[in-house]
Amino acid sequence: MLLDQINKTGDIKNIPANKYPELAQEIREFLIDNLSITGGHLASNLGTVELTMALHAALDLPEDKIIWDVGHQSYTHKILTGRKDKFNTLRQYGGISGFPKRCESDTDCFDTGHSSTSISAGLGMVKARDLQQDDYTVVSVIGDGSLTGGLAYEALNNAAKLETNFIIILNDNEMSISESVGGMNKYLNGVRTAEGYLNLKEDVYAQLRKNKKAVTGIRRAKNSFKQLFVPGMVFENLGITYLGPVNGHDTAGLIRTIKEAKKVKKAVMIHVMTKKGKGYEPAERHPARFHGTEPFLIENGLPRNPRTTANYQDIFSTVMCKLGDRNSKVVAITAAMADGTGLKRFRNMYKDRFVDAGIAEEHAVTFAAGMAAGGYRPVFAVYSSFLQRAYDQIMEDVCLQNLPVVFAVDRAGLVGSDGETHQGIFDISYLSTMPNMHIMAPKNKWELSDMLKFAIEFNGPTAIRYPRGNAYDGLKEFRAPIEMGKCEPIYEEKDICLLALGSMVKIAEEVRNILKENGLKCSLVNARFAKPIDTDYIHMAAKDHKLFVTMEENVACGGYGEKVRAYLDENKIDADMLQIAIPDQFVTHGNVDKLRQELGIDAKSIADRILKEIHR
Amino acid sequence: MLLDQINKTGDIKNIPANKYPELAQEIREFLIDNLSITGGHLASNLGTVELTMALHAALDLPEDKIIWDVGHQSYTHKILTGRKDKFNTLRQYGGISGFPKRCESDTDCFDTGHSSTSISAGLGMVKARDLQQDDYTVVSVIGDGSLTGGLAYEALNNAAKLETNFIIILNDNEMSISESVGGMNKYLNGVRTAEGYLNLKEDVYAQLRKNKKAVTGIRRAKNSFKQLFVPGMVFENLGITYLGPVNGHDTAGLIRTIKEAKKVKKAVMIHVMTKKGKGYEPAERHPARFHGTEPFLIENGLPRNPRTTANYQDIFSTVMCKLGDRNSKVVAITAAMADGTGLKRFRNMYKDRFVDAGIAEEHAVTFAAGMAAGGYRPVFAVYSSFLQRAYDQIMEDVCLQNLPVVFAVDRAGLVGSDGETHQGIFDISYLSTMPNMHIMAPKNKWELSDMLKFAIEFNGPTAIRYPRGNAYDGLKEFRAPIEMGKCEPIYEEKDICLLALGSMVKIAEEVRNILKENGLKCSLVNARFAKPIDTDYIHMAAKDHKLFVTMEENVACGGYGEKVRAYLDENKIDADMLQIAIPDQFVTHGNVDKLRQELGIDAKSIADRILKEIHR
Repeated sequence: MLLDQINKTGDIKNIPANKYPELAQEIREFLIDNLSITGGHLASNLGTVELTMALHAALDLPEDKIIWDVGHQSYTHKILTGRKDKFNTLRQYGGISGFPKRCESDTDCFDTGHSSTSISAGLGMVKARDLQQDDYTVVSVIGDGSLTGGLAYEALNNAAKLETNFIIILNDNEMSISESVGGMNKYLNGVRTAEGYLNLKEDVYAQLRKNKKAVTGIRRAKNSFKQLFVPGMVFENLGITYLGPVNGHDTAGLIRTIKEAKKVKKAVMIHVMTKKGKGYEPAERHPARFHGTEPFLIENGLPRNPRTTANYQDIFSTVMCKLGDRNSKVVAITAAMADGTGLKRFRNMYKDRFVDAGIAEEHAVTFAAGMAAGGYRPVFAVYSSFLQRAYDQIMEDVCLQNLPVVFAVDRAGLVGSDGETHQGIFDISYLSTMPNMHIMAPKNKWELSDMLKFAIEFNGPTAIRYPRGNAYDGLKEFRAPIEMGKCEPIYEEKDICLLALGSMVKIAEEVRNILKENGLKCSLVNARFAKPIDTDYIHMAAKDHKLFVTMEENVACGGYGEKVRAYLDENKIDADMLQIAIPDQFVTHGNVDKLRQELGIDAKSIADRILKEIHR
Repeated sequence: MLLDQINKTGDIKNIPANKYPELAQEIREFLIDNLSITGGHLASNLGTVELTMALHAALDLPEDKIIWDVGHQSYTHKILTGRKDKFNTLRQYGGISGFPKRCESDTDCFDTGHSSTSISAGLGMVKARDLQQDDYTVVSVIGDGSLTGGLAYEALNNAAKLETNFIIILNDNEMSISESVGGMNKYLNGVRTAEGYLNLKEDVYAQLRKNKKAVTGIRRAKNSFKQLFVPGMVFENLGITYLGPVNGHDTAGLIRTIKEAKKVKKAVMIHVMTKKGKGYEPAERHPARFHGTEPFLIENGLPRNPRTTANYQDIFSTVMCKLGDRNSKVVAITAAMADGTGLKRFRNMYKDRFVDAGIAEEHAVTFAAGMAAGGYRPVFAVYSSFLQRAYDQIMEDVCLQNLPVVFAVDRAGLVGSDGETHQGIFDISYLSTMPNMHIMAPKNKWELSDMLKFAIEFNGPTAIRYPRGNAYDGLKEFRAPIEMGKCEPIYEEKDICLLALGSMVKIAEEVRNILKENGLKCSLVNARFAKPIDTDYIHMAAKDHKLFVTMEENVACGGYGEKVRAYLDENKIDADMLQIAIPDQFVTHGNVDKLRQELGIDAKSIADRILKEIHR
C-alpha cells in the first residue's frame, strides 16, 4: 500500500509522480471505508483528493498555508498530515474534527466551518507575511458554491490590489450543497465550456493582424482584447489573474499549475474542475445526499441504520406544503439548503414560490423583507448557526419595519458531530436583542406544525427554533392553541416549576420523574415563547412555587432564563430561580447525549442541580 | 419659484423639460439653505438631484417603487413627495428622518440606513409583483460605494435569473464615504473612461465584417464579441443588462434612459455618473466632510459652531498613532470610515499597516482574524451598528480561535440625529453572547487611551465601546491601571452602589449628587468591563450595599446589568438590583439628551427610579 508510506506531513513528496493515481485510489478507498462506519462529509472529500495531493506535493507545510473554505473537504489534508490513524474517531467526542482545527495540527492554519471566509482569511495572512517580509505561500481553496456568498466577493474585491502572490483555488464542482445558483454559476458554466473561444482565437487574431491600427488601438484600450479569448474575464476585470479551467483529477497537471501560479506577483485564481463524489458511484449520482452522510453500506450507499421515525425536517416539509396550498401568499426561501431543511417538496410543488438564494443568508433575509413589504409571507428556513450571518439584516430590514417574515430556525440547539461552528446555541440570545421579534420553540412534532401555522398568520417577525434529528412524539395529548407569548402548562403541581423551552420539554419530563422519585412536587410548563415570555403565568405561578427552573438549549447569556430572572427580580417575586442553559463556551463535536452530560443539561445533571438548590 | 409648484407626489410631472435645470438649481439652494441650519447629509443629496427628478418624472409613485440604498440620498425624493415644508425639522426629535421611512410617506417603500440592501429588497418586491401579476416598476438606487458590500453582490447574483423588469441604478460618484476601494472600483474606473472602446468599435467591426466565418463564430460563442465593446461587461457576464455610463446631471437624458430600461425584460443596470456635492463648491472639494455635516456657514462651508473640545475619535486617532509607533505589529482596519473613526492620521503615518476594506465589515473582520493568525495585532475601528453585520465572523473567525483582534466600537450608545439604524445600542448584548470575547467601555478620554493600550497587549478578542461626540474629561484623577475584568471604584460609601459603564459614569456622577441631596449614601463604581464582570468586587460590595444599580447605554436584554443580576441571584446575594438600560425598542432620531429623557436613562429619571425603588 502506498498509503502506508504516508505517515506525516511531507511524506507525499516521496511518492513518485507515476504513482499518484494509485495513491489517489487508495485514499478514496480509505475515505469510503472509514466514512461508511463513522459518517461524515464524503462527496466533497472524494472530489478533492488529487487537488489536495497536488497542494501538498507543490507546497511546504506547515510553512506554507492552506485555508480550506468551510473545511468539509479537508479529510485528505488530514490524511496527508499524520492524522490517518485517527479517522476511526472522526467527528466523535474527543476524536478528530470534521473541519480544520488549529489545535489539531500546525498544518491547519485557520479554523473554518462557515462558508466563504477563506479568501478574507488568506488575504489577512498574506498581509501579515508581506509586512514581516516573509515569503511563504498562502492558498485559499474555495468552492463555487461558497463563491455565492458575498463575503467571498468582498474579499476578491480587496484581493485585486495585491502586488504579491496569493493563490485562490476555485474548486468548481458545479454544486453548493444543492446545485449552485445565480449569475456567477451561469457565468462559470460559460467558462467551463470555453473551448469554443479557444478555437476562434487563431482565426480572429490572424484576421486582425492585417489591420495594425485596430490592433494597436485595442492593446492601448487596457487589454480589452483579452476579453474575447480569456475565460474568467470577470475575475480578470476585477483584478485577479485567472488560470484555467484545469482538470482537478490530474495530480501532476495540478502541481504544474500551482507552481506556475506561485510565480504571479498578485492574486491569482486557479479554476479547478472537480467532480463531487468522484470514484464512488452512489456519491457521484447523489452528491447532495452524500454531502454529509450517516454511516452507510458500501455496496449500495444505503444507510446502515435506516431512519424509522420522522424528524423535525420531515414535519416542516409536510406542513409547508399544506400551507403553500392553503395560502397563496406563502413563499419558501433557502440559502442552498433545500435538502437539509426539507424544502425540496415545496420546491417541487410550488416552483414559483420557492427561492434558493445560494449560500447568501444576508441576501435571503433582505429579499424576504422585500417580499413581505410587497404583501407576501416568506418563510426562510435556515440553520441556526448560519442565520447568525444575517444578524444585521434581521434587525434592520425585518424587525425595524416589523415585517411578517417567518424564520424557521433549523438545527437549533446541539447538533452533534459537526461541532463548534454548527452548534445552534446562540439564536435565542441574538434574536432576543431585536425589538419586534417573537421567538418560539415546539415541544414536539405537532407543535411545530401549530407554530408554523400561527407564525404565517401573525403580522410581524417570528422565529421558530427546532432541533436536528428525531421529532419528539410524546405529549401528543397536550395541544392547546398557540397564543402570542403564552406558555402551555402541562402538569400543574406546586413547589418547583420547570419552565422548559422546545427540546428541553422532553428532558423536563425526565427531570420531573427523578424529582418525584425524590419526593418533590413539580410542575412542568412548556414555555413555548422565548420572547415575549409569559409574565402573567409566571406571576400567577409564583403563588404556589418557590423555585422556578428555566431550561433551554441555548447559551445562558441573553437567553430565555435571563428574561424570566429579570421579570422575577424586577417584580420582587419571592421565588428562587435556576437557569439551566449552556455555559459561556464553544461546544465541541460529539454525540449529543454525551455533550448534554458534559454541559450539565441532561436530565440527571439537571435533577442533581435542582436537588442541590433545594437543599442549600 | 418652480419649487412653489412642487407640493405633492407627482407635481414634478407638470414641470416642462426645459425648466429642469432651473428646478434642479432651486432644489440645490433649498438643500444648502436648510442643511446649513439643521445639518444632515449634504454631499450625497447634492449629487442626486437630477437623478431623483428623473425617476419621479419617469415613474408613477407610489405605485412604482424606489428603494434608496443607505437612504442618505433621499432628500430630493422627500422634497418631491410633499415633505418640503418639514425640512426645518430634519433629523430632529419628532421631525422627518434623514432616511426613507415607510411610516412617513407611501412613497417610501422600504426603510434603509445600512449599506448594500437595496438590490435584495428590490428583488423581493419584484418577486412579489410578479407573483401577483402586477406590473409596477421597481428601481433600486445603489452607490458605487455600497457595491463594495457583499450583500449587493449576493443580490446581483440572484438578479441574474430574472425574466422580468428590474432596474438597478448604479449611482457612481467614485466615493464610498471616503474614496471607493478595490477591484470593482478599479474596474468601474475603466468603464468610466470607456470612450476609447467606443471609437474603436467601428474600425474593428468593419475589419471583421470582411471575415464572415470569424464573425459568425464569434456570435455563436455566446455574444463574446460584446466583451470587446461593451463597458460594464462584468455585469453582463453576471447576467445583468448594462446601460451606460450616462450623465447623472442631465435630467431629460436620464428620463429617456429610464424609459428605455423599463422595456428590458430582465435585471438592467443603468450606470449613472454623478458628482458628490455638485453645485456647492466646498462640498465638491470635500465630499467626505460634507457627507454628513453639522450646521455650517454657507459662504465658506465652515461649521457654525466650531468644536472646542476633543471627541473620542480624536483620542482614538492620537493613541493609535502612538501605538503604531511603539508596536510594529499594530495594524488598523476600517470599513470605508477612515474619516469618521479618526484613522486618517494613522493611514498617513503607517500606510502599509492601514487597510480600508470598503463597506465590507464581514471581510474586515475575517481579514483581521487572518492577520492575527499571522502574528499581527489588528484594530478594527467600526461603528457599533455596522459591526452588527459581522456578527458571524466575530464569532466564528475571531472568538472561536481566540485571536487577538481589537474591536474599536465607535458610535456606541445613542448617536442622535441618524436615528434607528445608527443607534449603537446592541453591541454589548451581541458581543456578550460570544465565548472568549472581552468588552470594555471607558469613562473618559484618558481611559480610552489606557484601554486601547491594554487591549493591544491582551492575547484574545477585545472590544472597546465608546460614544460619538465629546470625550468626557472629568474624573481625571481616577486612573487605576486596567486589569482584565476588574472595575474601578470611584467613590466608596454604602447602601446604594452605582455600577456604571462607559458613558454612564458621567451620568452616574449626577445621579449620585441628586441622591446625596436626598440624603442617601451612594457608591460610584466605574464598571469598565461589560464582560467579564467583576464578580469579586460585587461579592465584596454586597456587604455594605442593599441596592445595586447598573447603568449602561445598551438594550437591557443581554446587557451588562443582566450579567450582574445573574451573578447576584445565582449566588443568593441579598441585595436588590435595578438595571438602567434601554428598553426593548428601536430608538428614533433626535437630540441625544432628549432621547435619554424619553428612554429614562438621564440622571433625573434614573435618580427618580432609584428613589422609588428605595421607598417601595
